[in-house]
Amino acid sequence: MAKDTVKNTARDTDRVLIFDTTLRDGEQSPGATMNVAEKLAVAKQLARLNVDIIEAGFPFASPGDFEAVQRIAAEVGTPNGPTICGLARATKGDIEAAAKAVAPAANGRIHTFLATSDIHMKYKLKKSRADVLAMTGEMVAYAKSFTDDIEFSPEDAGRSEPDFLYQVLDRAIAAGATTLNIPDTVGYLTPTEFGDLIRGIKANVSNIDRVVISVHGHNDLGLAVANFLEAVKAGARQLECTINGIGERAGNAALEELVMALHVRRQYYNPFFGLPAESEAPLTNINTKELYKSSRLVSNVTGMLVQPNKAIVGANAFAHESGIHQDGVLKNRLTYEIMDAQLIGLNNNLIVLGKHSGRNAFRTRLGELGFELSDQELNKAFLRFKDVADKKKEISDRDLEAIVNDETLQIAEHFKLELIQVSCGSNATPTATVTLLMPDGQDLTDAAIGTGPVDAIYRAINRVVQIENDLIEYSVQSVTAGIDAMGEVTIRLQQGERIYSGHAANTDIVVASAYAYVNALNRLYTASQAGESIHPQKEKIPVGTGV
Amino acid sequence: MAKDTVKNTARDTDRVLIFDTTLRDGEQSPGATMNVAEKLAVAKQLARLNVDIIEAGFPFASPGDFEAVQRIAAEVGTPNGPTICGLARATKGDIEAAAKAVAPAANGRIHTFLATSDIHMKYKLKKSRADVLAMTGEMVAYAKSFTDDIEFSPEDAGRSEPDFLYQVLDRAIAAGATTLNIPDTVGYLTPTEFGDLIRGIKANVSNIDRVVISVHGHNDLGLAVANFLEAVKAGARQLECTINGIGERAGNAALEELVMALHVRRQYYNPFFGLPAESEAPLTNINTKELYKSSRLVSNVTGMLVQPNKAIVGANAFAHESGIHQDGVLKNRLTYEIMDAQLIGLNNNLIVLGKHSGRNAFRTRLGELGFELSDQELNKAFLRFKDVADKKKEISDRDLEAIVNDETLQIAEHFKLELIQVSCGSNATPTATVTLLMPDGQDLTDAAIGTGPVDAIYRAINRVVQIENDLIEYSVQSVTAGIDAMGEVTIRLQQGERIYSGHAANTDIVVASAYAYVNALNRLYTASQAGESIHPQKEKIPVGTGV
Repeated sequence: MAKDTVKNTARDTDRVLIFDTTLRDGEQSPGATMNVAEKLAVAKQLARLNVDIIEAGFPFASPGDFEAVQRIAAEVGTPNGPTICGLARATKGDIEAAAKAVAPAANGRIHTFLATSDIHMKYKLKKSRADVLAMTGEMVAYAKSFTDDIEFSPEDAGRSEPDFLYQVLDRAIAAGATTLNIPDTVGYLTPTEFGDLIRGIKANVSNIDRVVISVHGHNDLGLAVANFLEAVKAGARQLECTINGIGERAGNAALEELVMALHVRRQYYNPFFGLPAESEAPLTNINTKELYKSSRLVSNVTGMLVQPNKAIVGANAFAHESGIHQDGVLKNRLTYEIMDAQLIGLNNNLIVLGKHSGRNAFRTRLGELGFELSDQELNKAFLRFKDVADKKKEISDRDLEAIVNDETLQIAEHFKLELIQVSCGSNATPTATVTLLMPDGQDLTDAAIGTGPVDAIYRAINRVVQIENDLIEYSVQSVTAGIDAMGEVTIRLQQGERIYSGHAANTDIVVASAYAYVNALNRLYTASQAGESIHPQKEKIPVGTGV
Repeated sequence: MAKDTVKNTARDTDRVLIFDTTLRDGEQSPGATMNVAEKLAVAKQLARLNVDIIEAGFPFASPGDFEAVQRIAAEVGTPNGPTICGLARATKGDIEAAAKAVAPAANGRIHTFLATSDIHMKYKLKKSRADVLAMTGEMVAYAKSFTDDIEFSPEDAGRSEPDFLYQVLDRAIAAGATTLNIPDTVGYLTPTEFGDLIRGIKANVSNIDRVVISVHGHNDLGLAVANFLEAVKAGARQLECTINGIGERAGNAALEELVMALHVRRQYYNPFFGLPAESEAPLTNINTKELYKSSRLVSNVTGMLVQPNKAIVGANAFAHESGIHQDGVLKNRLTYEIMDAQLIGLNNNLIVLGKHSGRNAFRTRLGELGFELSDQELNKAFLRFKDVADKKKEISDRDLEAIVNDETLQIAEHFKLELIQVSCGSNATPTATVTLLMPDGQDLTDAAIGTGPVDAIYRAINRVVQIENDLIEYSVQSVTAGIDAMGEVTIRLQQGERIYSGHAANTDIVVASAYAYVNALNRLYTASQAGESIHPQKEKIPVGTGV
C-alpha cells in the first residue's frame, strides 16, 4: 500500500507534524504516573489542541498502559482526530500489543525502536550490528502486517556510527516504515550537530524521500528546542515533544516553545519549507489558544510544576516588572513583546460564576472550557462547586478546572476520608484526628501528634491505613490569586523503587493535604491489587524507553 | 591606560567569562525582589561559584540598590574575587551613581546601555540616530573618567539596523569601552541569527579585537542557551546569565546550562577557542560543584521555584524512572548519563547532625557549607537548629541551609509574630488567633475565621496590621523528603503595582505560612518607610532595563 494514503505521513508537507508524547515519554518523569481517566482527559485536550499524532503509551508495559492506549484509540482516535500511536520494542510481543491497542483508532500507528549506538548495542542489547540490522527489517515488516502507518526509531541515533545508522534506516524503509524518528536519547547533541545528522541521513539513505523524518530529543543541556528547530531547517517534518517539556530527566522538547517559535519566527523558517518569507500560513496545525490550558491540565494531573520563568506558559512569561519595560510596553507593545498573551489562551480567565450561579450556567461554562462530563460527574462537580462558592466569592475558570479535575480524575477510593480535625500553633503540639472508610467497609478513627498539622494528619492516617511508604515531596500552589484562593496540594510518596503522586484542591490546605495523601495511597493500593509494580525492579516488565 | 591591565577584559582569552546578572536582571523577575542581606548572601555564593563578573544591581534606581551594590563591592569585590559591575543608563547621573557604588571593589566595572533599534529609539528614547551616536561616545568617555573597565550595550541590538549598530560600537570602542555586550532584548533571535550577528560585528567594527564581545539574551522562545553557545562559536567571550535562568519574563540564559554544556561538550567547542578537540582544559572558571547549592539559594531568596524537569538543577535532572533506563544505567552509566551528579554538587547532602550535636559541630558544618556567620547570627541559628532537631531526627545539609537562610536573611522586623493558634478540619470552621508585636511596642491579639487555616491566619493578621494588600501567590515546598520534613512557604503579595515576596521555613506549614506573610508585610512596610516604591509607577525612577 502506498504510504501517501496514510494520514500524517505525507512527506512533502509544507508544515511540521506535531507528535505529542506527553502520555508516553512525559509519563516517564519520576512521579508523573497518570491513571486511565487522567490520560483520557489529557488526550482529549491534546485533540482540542489539534496535535497530529498522540503517542498514548507503551501497551506491552502493563495492563494499565494497554487499557489507556486502547481507550484513547477508541474515544479520541476519530477519523478527523489525531493519529493514535503505541510504542513497542522491536519484539513480536511488544508489536502485537501495540497493534491491538491502537486498532480501535481510525488512524493508528505502531512506533517500534531498536538501539543502534555501539554503547547501547554492547551493554543493553548484547547484539551485533548484523543482528540489529536483521531485527530492524523483520520487526518493521511484522508491524506492517498489522497497520500501514509504521514509525521506526534507531535509539541513541545521536551517538550511532553514521554509516551503520544509514544502513539500518535503509532497511527500515525497505520493510515499510513510513516515519523515521531520529532520537537524541541522552540529550547530548548541539543544534548544528543535529542539523548535520539530519542532512547526512537525507543525503545517504536511499528512498528517504518516501518517509517523514522525525526528531526526538532530551533537554539535559537545555538545547532540545533549538536542536529541533535546526533539524526542521535540515528537513525534519515531525517533532516529538511534550506539554511543559516533561519527560525523562530534564524532559523532552517543549511543544509550546516549538510551536510558538515556528509561529513568531515564521518569516525566518518559511524559506526552509519552500515558502516565501512573507507567507502567513501557519507552520503547524496547532490551535495555539489551547496551549495555556493544556499546560495547566498536564501540570495538574502529573504534579509536575511549571516554573514562573518557563518560556510561553510560565506565570511570568508575559509579565513585566521593571518600570522602563512597563513604560515601553505602554508606549508601544512591540518594544518588549514579541507575542500576544491572547495567542496562547491567556487573559481568558474570566470570572463568571458565584454562589448564585445555577446548574445550567455551570454546565454551559464547563462546555465552553472543553469539559465533557457525564451526568453523574456533573452532579458531583456541581455539589463541589456550590461548596466552594459558599467560601469563595468569585469562581474563575481556573477554579472550575481545579474543581472538575479534582472531582472527575479521582481513582478508585479504596480508602475514603470521612473526617479530619486538627489543632496547631506556635506554642501547641500539632494534633490530628482522622476517620477513614476502609476497603472492608469499616470506619476507623485514630489520632496522632506531629511536627506540624500535615505531619500529624499523615501519621494519623498511617496508624489507620498501615501501608509503609516514604513521603518524598510535598508542595502546595494557590489556584488563583486572592486570600481565599484554593490550594492545590501535590505529594509524591515512594514504596520500594516506585513513586506515586497524589493531588487534591481545597480552600483549606490542611484538608487538601489529607485528601492528596489518601489519593496517593489509593494509587499505591490499586497498583498493589493489580499485582503490578509495587516491587518493580525484579518483577516488572521494563517500562519506558530512551527513544 | 591599556585595556589589557583590566581584569576580566583580556580579549584573547581561551575561555569564556561568566558574567552573572542574577542580582540585576534576575531580580527584575516579578516578585523576586531581594533585600541587601539576601543580595550579599547570593553575591558571596557567586564568588564561591567563581563567576568572573557579578552585576550587582542598578545603583541609580533606588537607595536600596545603591547600598546593595556598594556593600557587595566592599565585601565580595576583593583583589582575587570577582569584578563587581553596576548598571547605568547613558546619563551622567546614572554613571556617577554606578561609579560610586562599585568604587570599593578591587575590580569595578560600569555597564552603560543605550537602545539602537529603530523601534526603541522612536518610541522609548525619542532620539535620532545622530543623537544616539553622540550620546554613546560622550557617556562611555564619561564612564571611563571614573574607571578603566567599561562595558557598553546597544539595547535591542538584535533588532537594530546592522550598519548603524556597527557605527555605535565603533564609537563606544573609540571612547574607551573594554567590553561590548550584544543583547537580544526581546528573546527573538534564533541561534544562527545570533551567530551571524556576532560574526557581522567582528567583520565590520574597527578595533573589535581590542574588546571582549559579550552576549545577553532572553528565553521567550526557549532559545537563550543555544543562542549563546552559537555566539561563542562566532567569537563571543563573555556570557551574561543568571542562576536558574531567572529574569524578566521567561528569564535569561541559565548559567548552569551554559557552563555544563561547555563542560560536557568541550571536545565540540574546543576548536572554536583554537584548542585541540581533546583538550581537557575547562572553558569557564566556574567551580561546578557549587552549582546545585547556588540554585537552591537563589530559589529560596527569590521565591522563584525550579521545575523538576529543569536542565541540570531540576529535581529530576539526574533521576530515572523507567525500568529500561535503570537497567541500562546499572549496566553502564554512560548508556543514559552524560554527566555525573557529583559534578554539580549533588549527592553531597549528607546527614550529619541531630539533637545531640553541639555548637561546635554545627559551626563546623556551616563553615564547610560556606556560611560565614557572625557570633550573634550563629547563636540565633543554633537555637533554631536545636528547636528543629527536637522535632526532626536527622538534620541534613539542606535543612541547615533552610535554617540559616531563614534566620539570617530576615529583614527588619517591624511586625513580630508572638503567637499563632489554629483549629480546622473537614467539618470545622477554620479559626486562627494571632498575637503580633507592633512597631510601637504594643502587643495586639485578634482572631478570624477563614476558608482554611492559612486564610484564617492571614485574616487575623490583617485585622491586627491593617495594611491593604492582595495575596497573589502562595506555595509550599518540602525541604527534604520524609514525613517530618520542614516546609518552605513562599508568598507574593501585591500593593498597587509593586509585588513583595515573603519566605519562611518550619516543620509546621501553618506556622511557616504565618511567618512568610509577616515577612512579606515587613518588606512592604520597609519600602513604605523608605518612601520608595509603594506607589511605584508615577513616582519611582524606572528601575530595570531591557539589556
